[in-house]
Amino acid sequence: MAQKPSIPKGTRDFSAQEVNKRHYIINTIKNQFTKFGFQPIETPSFENYDTLMGKYGEEGDRLIFKILNSGDFLKKVNPNDIKSENTLAITPKIAEKALRYDLTVPFARYVVQHQNELDFPFKRYQIQPVWRADRPQKGRFREFFQCDADVVGSQSLWQEVEFVQLYDAVFTQLKLEGVQIKINNRKILSGFAEIIGQSDKLIDFTVALDKLDKIGEEAVIEEMKAKGITAQAIDTIQPIFNLKGDFSEQIASLRGILAASKSGLEGLQELEFIQQAIEAMPLKTARLTLDVTLARGLNYYTGAIFEIAAPPQVKMGSIGGGGRYDDLTGIFGLKNMSGVGISFGLDRIYLVLEELKLFPKTADAQTQVIFINFGHQEALYAMQAIRLLRDKGVAAELYPDEAKMKKQMNYANKRAIPFVVLAGSKEMQKEQFTLKNMMTGEQNDVNLQELKKMLQA
Amino acid sequence: MAQKPSIPKGTRDFSAQEVNKRHYIINTIKNQFTKFGFQPIETPSFENYDTLMGKYGEEGDRLIFKILNSGDFLKKVNPNDIKSENTLAITPKIAEKALRYDLTVPFARYVVQHQNELDFPFKRYQIQPVWRADRPQKGRFREFFQCDADVVGSQSLWQEVEFVQLYDAVFTQLKLEGVQIKINNRKILSGFAEIIGQSDKLIDFTVALDKLDKIGEEAVIEEMKAKGITAQAIDTIQPIFNLKGDFSEQIASLRGILAASKSGLEGLQELEFIQQAIEAMPLKTARLTLDVTLARGLNYYTGAIFEIAAPPQVKMGSIGGGGRYDDLTGIFGLKNMSGVGISFGLDRIYLVLEELKLFPKTADAQTQVIFINFGHQEALYAMQAIRLLRDKGVAAELYPDEAKMKKQMNYANKRAIPFVVLAGSKEMQKEQFTLKNMMTGEQNDVNLQELKKMLQA
Repeated sequence: MAQKPSIPKGTRDFSAQEVNKRHYIINTIKNQFTKFGFQPIETPSFENYDTLMGKYGEEGDRLIFKILNSGDFLKKVNPNDIKSENTLAITPKIAEKALRYDLTVPFARYVVQHQNELDFPFKRYQIQPVWRADRPQKGRFREFFQCDADVVGSQSLWQEVEFVQLYDAVFTQLKLEGVQIKINNRKILSGFAEIIGQSDKLIDFTVALDKLDKIGEEAVIEEMKAKGITAQAIDTIQPIFNLKGDFSEQIASLRGILAASKSGLEGLQELEFIQQAIEAMPLKTARLTLDVTLARGLNYYTGAIFEIAAPPQVKMGSIGGGGRYDDLTGIFGLKNMSGVGISFGLDRIYLVLEELKLFPKTADAQTQVIFINFGHQEALYAMQAIRLLRDKGVAAELYPDEAKMKKQMNYANKRAIPFVVLAGSKEMQKEQFTLKNMMTGEQNDVNLQELKKMLQA
Repeated sequence: MAQKPSIPKGTRDFSAQEVNKRHYIINTIKNQFTKFGFQPIETPSFENYDTLMGKYGEEGDRLIFKILNSGDFLKKVNPNDIKSENTLAITPKIAEKALRYDLTVPFARYVVQHQNELDFPFKRYQIQPVWRADRPQKGRFREFFQCDADVVGSQSLWQEVEFVQLYDAVFTQLKLEGVQIKINNRKILSGFAEIIGQSDKLIDFTVALDKLDKIGEEAVIEEMKAKGITAQAIDTIQPIFNLKGDFSEQIASLRGILAASKSGLEGLQELEFIQQAIEAMPLKTARLTLDVTLARGLNYYTGAIFEIAAPPQVKMGSIGGGGRYDDLTGIFGLKNMSGVGISFGLDRIYLVLEELKLFPKTADAQTQVIFINFGHQEALYAMQAIRLLRDKGVAAELYPDEAKMKKQMNYANKRAIPFVVLAGSKEMQKEQFTLKNMMTGEQNDVNLQELKKMLQA
């Protein structure tokens, strides 16, 4: 019996229109990555089990897709583990490969493995799919693309400056105005925890603080108290809930608050460097804002933290993010490699551009003209013209069958092909073509030269 | 302890240079696909186990990578199967998804699943990786890209004509001259088997015939005899081992040989249609040749069979192939959908272009200019210029750290960046830049306007 076709949950088929629009975004990002000096690398879709496991926390380990060994996959398993159905012990024996969970760990592995071929600082970009066995839900997929740019091997803050410019350049080119580039620094968050004398509570503190936007000051304070942060400590830090003024003014306020924290002041100095550079080289359409509640990726970021918010008229989570991590490659044995990188959220950017109708018409590159098929001699006449049109860069087709005229015109219509050429024996005798504009209905009798000219435009 | 980084056997990391060259090929193919009216689709990397299994023969089933179910994957397994370690019975219970093995089966699944949204004839292209648990060896990988274009929903031979033109267009654009487009027809092979009265031996006969090139006539005849094909039958068919003349002359000879086979004559007529169309619209750099020994993909092709041979000066297997299959989507319940398609062998085309030194310099798009970092003020001065250069489309970088001059110049050199800008306090005062051509060693003092002009060129 024939199978009813379907795809695994959390995965997607992309139609031509969707692929074209996705590539429009990807090509824009690539174009800017290249102008900023990033070079593409690609890594395999699956890595050794050990390369990925233990890098994303317990939750992450569970969400990694493992690939079943080929052949007699049970042969390496301890019979007792089979008997007791000990899946945790069995998994690494029967699945020695796993699908990429993100692009950062494979990148770290790549840098260490190829360190002798690379020139540092090494600037790379990578645009490839990743896979996560997450519960699928609206906007969350089991296969999705990540678009990352990272630099390793330099601690220079000019890189943070460049990433701010890079975000601005990409969103400007996409005509997505009003994007907010939020920046924070891990050292400032550490400073806060220091100041309140509860450095051991850094994670609890920042996790609560991160929710300020969503749940408000009171609820954040409640949560902090619940986590054992004293009322006195919260009082000390209270001013950060209501920082006023522009970037520089907020820095000034924070300098007071963090006066006693060496780490905090260092974080402020870094932010100031970035802010002043951007002031000297204003952004085109995006806005750089300080957000001390930003705690994204606290587990690995050690310096700057970035998060990109879509323009306020669109309801959407972050459409990008990144930061600096001081020890990217340590897990693979190469110490003291500072890295900094950013990521673009392709799926969400797609939704934003769709909602704001920002995809240009040309994003959906498609066939410009189709020739009606009136029979063998006419088809050959058409094909000769099509051949010359293609040489001139025009996407052109012949309807392959000598079907009823109405069927052929319907096909052109449904596919939204803008021009149709009708060339029957009458036109052939005069070496002409009837060109019909499907939008306006206008028809013109033209020769080959004119046809080329009209379609190339 | 730090892990020594490695990747699974049969997989590859691609350096920037390799990615850029691969994309040069892919973009060329895409460009022509689009001009010929093909639209891109993308399907998920993994499909349901049942979608893929049983479509590629027993060998294929074994070579499909299966993905281990998440969580307690043993719960659906029959305990007896666990006890007896019956891997064949266990596999479908613990691995309900599998990595794409080729692009054809997912395409068939796509067409059936989306049949109501598609307009037929449906012309699609698809360029995505596939995975096979094959034994890795030189030129054979466990992850590799396929580049396919197919049409479903029409039996018109104009499509075969177009595929010949498409091959020619791609290889011409890649400047790979002298490619041979070999064509055959399944119906001709059936005709041979008919003529010798051994239609039941069609597979044995064509498998042997396919080796004519490699092992010669005598050995082929030996093999046929070993397979139970009679000496008399082989005598009847003997002329096909030594067909002489050009395409038309060979067709004429075959018309004699196949006179008694309806199917054979039909195959010849189809070939003639294609050949005459190509004669009326000559190919640019490729050559269309008839090869009656071509039996590639006999299991599924029902009409035309294509295979592309690299120019004779390169030792390389086929760099592309394809054909017509009358029932592409039947396995998923949609009958009578004739399909025809071709494929480009990306990895092998890469090797051929490399060997013949046909990659253009521009294929490896990379940074055009790097600015030396002389300190904070100088870096800001540089960054301002870099920003304007990027706006003009120039890929430009700042060396991120104020390192020793020699180190910075070495970096530029190793990365083969063609231009270096030196701008210290002296240049800043004069609002100038010293531009050094790293190939010639030539240095020029220029202003920003001149700098832009020189680097845009």
